[in-house]
Amino acid sequence: MTPSSPLKRRLYKVIFEAHTPLGKAFDILLLLLIISSVLVVSLESVKELRRQYLQQFITLEWIFTILFTIEYLLRIYSTPKPLKYIFSFFGIVDLISIIPTYLSLVIMGSQYLLVIRVLRLLRIARIFKLTHFINEGKQLSNALRASFTKIAVFIGTVLLLVVIIGSIMYIVEGEASGFTSIPKSIYWAIVTLTTVGYGDIAPATPLGQILASFVMIMGYGIIAVPTGIVTVEMSRTARKTAETRLCPNCHQEGHPVSAKYCFNCGYHFAAM
Amino acid sequence: MTPSSPLKRRLYKVIFEAHTPLGKAFDILLLLLIISSVLVVSLESVKELRRQYLQQFITLEWIFTILFTIEYLLRIYSTPKPLKYIFSFFGIVDLISIIPTYLSLVIMGSQYLLVIRVLRLLRIARIFKLTHFINEGKQLSNALRASFTKIAVFIGTVLLLVVIIGSIMYIVEGEASGFTSIPKSIYWAIVTLTTVGYGDIAPATPLGQILASFVMIMGYGIIAVPTGIVTVEMSRTARKTAETRLCPNCHQEGHPVSAKYCFNCGYHFAAM
Amino acid sequence: MTPSSPLKRRLYKVIFEAHTPLGKAFDILLLLLIISSVLVVSLESVKELRRQYLQQFITLEWIFTILFTIEYLLRIYSTPKPLKYIFSFFGIVDLISIIPTYLSLVIMGSQYLLVIRVLRLLRIARIFKLTHFINEGKQLSNALRASFTKIAVFIGTVLLLVVIIGSIMYIVEGEASGFTSIPKSIYWAIVTLTTVGYGDIAPATPLGQILASFVMIMGYGIIAVPTGIVTVEMSRTARKTAETRLCPNCHQEGHPVSAKYCFNCGYHFAAM
Amino acid sequence: MTPSSPLKRRLYKVIFEAHTPLGKAFDILLLLLIISSVLVVSLESVKELRRQYLQQFITLEWIFTILFTIEYLLRIYSTPKPLKYIFSFFGIVDLISIIPTYLSLVIMGSQYLLVIRVLRLLRIARIFKLTHFINEGKQLSNALRASFTKIAVFIGTVLLLVVIIGSIMYIVEGEASGFTSIPKSIYWAIVTLTTVGYGDIAPATPLGQILASFVMIMGYGIIAVPTGIVTVEMSRTARKTAETRLCPNCHQEGHPVSAKYCFNCGYHFAAM
Repeated sequence: MTPSSPLKRRLYKVIFEAHTPLGKAFDILLLLLIISSVLVVSLESVKELRRQYLQQFITLEWIFTILFTIEYLLRIYSTPKPLKYIFSFFGIVDLISIIPTYLSLVIMGSQYLLVIRVLRLLRIARIFKLTHFINEGKQLSNALRASFTKIAVFIGTVLLLVVIIGSIMYIVEGEASGFTSIPKSIYWAIVTLTTVGYGDIAPATPLGQILASFVMIMGYGIIAVPTGIVTVEMSRTARKTAETRLCPNCHQEGHPVSAKYCFNCGYHFAAM
Repeated sequence: MTPSSPLKRRLYKVIFEAHTPLGKAFDILLLLLIISSVLVVSLESVKELRRQYLQQFITLEWIFTILFTIEYLLRIYSTPKPLKYIFSFFGIVDLISIIPTYLSLVIMGSQYLLVIRVLRLLRIARIFKLTHFINEGKQLSNALRASFTKIAVFIGTVLLLVVIIGSIMYIVEGEASGFTSIPKSIYWAIVTLTTVGYGDIAPATPLGQILASFVMIMGYGIIAVPTGIVTVEMSRTARKTAETRLCPNCHQEGHPVSAKYCFNCGYHFAAM
Repeated sequence: MTPSSPLKRRLYKVIFEAHTPLGKAFDILLLLLIISSVLVVSLESVKELRRQYLQQFITLEWIFTILFTIEYLLRIYSTPKPLKYIFSFFGIVDLISIIPTYLSLVIMGSQYLLVIRVLRLLRIARIFKLTHFINEGKQLSNALRASFTKIAVFIGTVLLLVVIIGSIMYIVEGEASGFTSIPKSIYWAIVTLTTVGYGDIAPATPLGQILASFVMIMGYGIIAVPTGIVTVEMSRTARKTAETRLCPNCHQEGHPVSAKYCFNCGYHFAAM
Repeated sequence: MTPSSPLKRRLYKVIFEAHTPLGKAFDILLLLLIISSVLVVSLESVKELRRQYLQQFITLEWIFTILFTIEYLLRIYSTPKPLKYIFSFFGIVDLISIIPTYLSLVIMGSQYLLVIRVLRLLRIARIFKLTHFINEGKQLSNALRASFTKIAVFIGTVLLLVVIIGSIMYIVEGEASGFTSIPKSIYWAIVTLTTVGYGDIAPATPLGQILASFVMIMGYGIIAVPTGIVTVEMSRTARKTAETRLCPNCHQEGHPVSAKYCFNCGYHFAAM
């Protein structure tokens, strides 16, 4: 069988691509399988359900595992470069998705191993890679990447702040209110500064509450910083991708793509 | 009686439209009736009040129901296309608003059914549709719709994150701290990432608290993304609706105020 | 004594205005007095402190009240239109600031009345009105006012949402988890949607937690809307107040105020 | 030894600067030392660890202290102006970083004093000052400084609001729900308005919950203000640093890229 056999090529188109009707159908089926499989893993972790439906869960899990195994083997078979696929990010994720079930036959009762199957969700990323969502996702991640240094400086400052705030609160509040150690106080500072506020640890002394108030108002202002960073970056990429054209005569910018004449010098674009 | 009888037409103007003084008065009266009726439904659900004022609540409820029934019948009578109204969104909402009270005569003690009457609130949307609030609402919903794909990608990523974070925390924390199952851990991850932070489930082990700290700081940054999306979209629609000029020759929109020539037909604006 | 007696005019300048050294000193003194007085009211409400320092609190309170009374009388005396001042917003606030202490002589033990003295804080607003903070404050309040309709639509939608969400949660969760009535469930919905999340009421059933998760993710997106509104409005006012000049020759906009030549046609501004 | 001895100059380059390979290596080593040292201080505060590893903690602490002391002495030795360094901000921080350990020999059991060593973290700021992170940090802090007056007005308004809200809630809720004094109620108002929401104090009466709902929705809107301020300021600085051109004739900055003439000297850019 040559590497470019027609069967291989047709399988490749269905499994790896998405612009044929069969390829789309395969992707949707795979998406449903992944989501159902993760749903089964989740529900299996609920004690009452596991007790009552254990047999059904095991049966379903084996159905999913066998289907994913067939898919994995077909991927290796149909791809022109099997080794490259096997050691790619998605190749490893595909393998990790099926291994825990097989291992559960050998190693007894390893509940924790089974949770790894949740990583099947990462396989969804591949499906979306092939759809029109990718542009939007790219724009989002571009905006985040462009502002990476700013965000790093910001997170560094926040970490510095929470360590110092946590240490001060450890001295001020002490063990009575739950600030039993500096790491726990730092945990409290993060919970407070991010406005999560569980309330499992909360200042009880007047001085502690005054300091906490400062931290909260500070957190209020600090939350504005990442928002500002991301918004500015997004509006910049939005502006860049916004289609405008340049006048070749007077170089005036900002014309919509449908423009026929330069609004600065009246030059006729159609004459280009 | 012809479909265009003067009474029908006058009723239609009062009930369905809002630019006559009577129409406005009708809308304000209806608004007050809806709000009072929902208030009565709400207060009726308070045990102490229900015990003490049950008779008054029932009386008030029947007054509201009869008034809304009369209104519903008048709407059917006055509209030129009764069937179209009956099966429209607002026609169904109008019917749902009155049915539970009548059903309570037949089916005994169905407290849950009565709560449906809260959906009367949706009728307020119709009233606002007729006022000047609509433009602002449209601008808001336009901004949201334009950024729909971006928001979908964002929510998808968040859902993927909370499932993976939840599963990890289920293993790390275990049942002792309330992470009794993966769905419950996912619920915790959502409560934390959105910075709500009830505190009904909170990590108790050091490793769990370190992971939770990462989740919180991540949530801090993630909250910036929808804000960035909506802000950029809003500023774009704001810019579109403002600061542009219309070509008096070809009615092409979207010229910057500094434009000298229409970019569509080359018309010289200065010649105006 | 004529209405424009020199004493009156000098008093008016010191008390009501702030551009003379004496006027500024008066404002700073008043600011300190108001803040100390509110501090005393606050500390007096702490049980342990009231028990121990009751006499000192009463003495201080009378000192503040007498000083504010003298100031109030001087304001009436020095202003050219006493009645207009007395019935103005700040005139009423000034009166409310001193009345409770006098009333406490007549009516016994009315602790609640004394808290009204906290409203003295509103008097600070007057002082800031006279300083350079006003421009910034005006810009902020302008941005808020300009987006008032948008914010009203937004708050209306939020209120509609919390009533419907609250009613659904009342049916889903019931009394066992604290959702004892529709108003209480609406309160929970507000606490959750605004990401405050006290945790005094939290869903306990799986269905309730799924619904709550939807509400939280929704709240995550909704919080972006007011931020977007205010940011767009602020950047618009910022752009408006950003000083640019127009070329009188070619009407090209966007020149910095220091520009000497039009960057579009080279016209020399100094020739204006 | 003259002040410009080659050893001194070489030491200065390594310790105070970062553009030589040795200087960079020194900075990275120092960064690791500071972080490990703060980690040791943190872990030492955990009771179980202190009990078990007390001797190791003390040994490590002395190693860090001696290394930092050597570094401190070398800094004094190598800098051309020792007194200026000693009394500079970083000089004092460097001294504070080593003093507590030495003092612990003299004064017994002063646990609180040892926490001061956490301030070593501030020394990290110096290292980052020398790296490429500084530009981003400067841009962030510039944006914050430029909007300082606006943020001051905003925080002032927030403080005014929480005092008034706190006082009202103190009267409405009373001691039964934890609002035991005005300062504690103000603390609650800050916890709520910033959407932290611990839940240690929460309104229990219907009226209190209605008021709290208003505060939360208000807080929802208020959080938009600092975000708006910072975003506008950031986009302004971002715009300033990007998309402008320099005049090659007079070096005037700030021309839009579409500029044809320098607005300062009238130089014709196209003639470039």
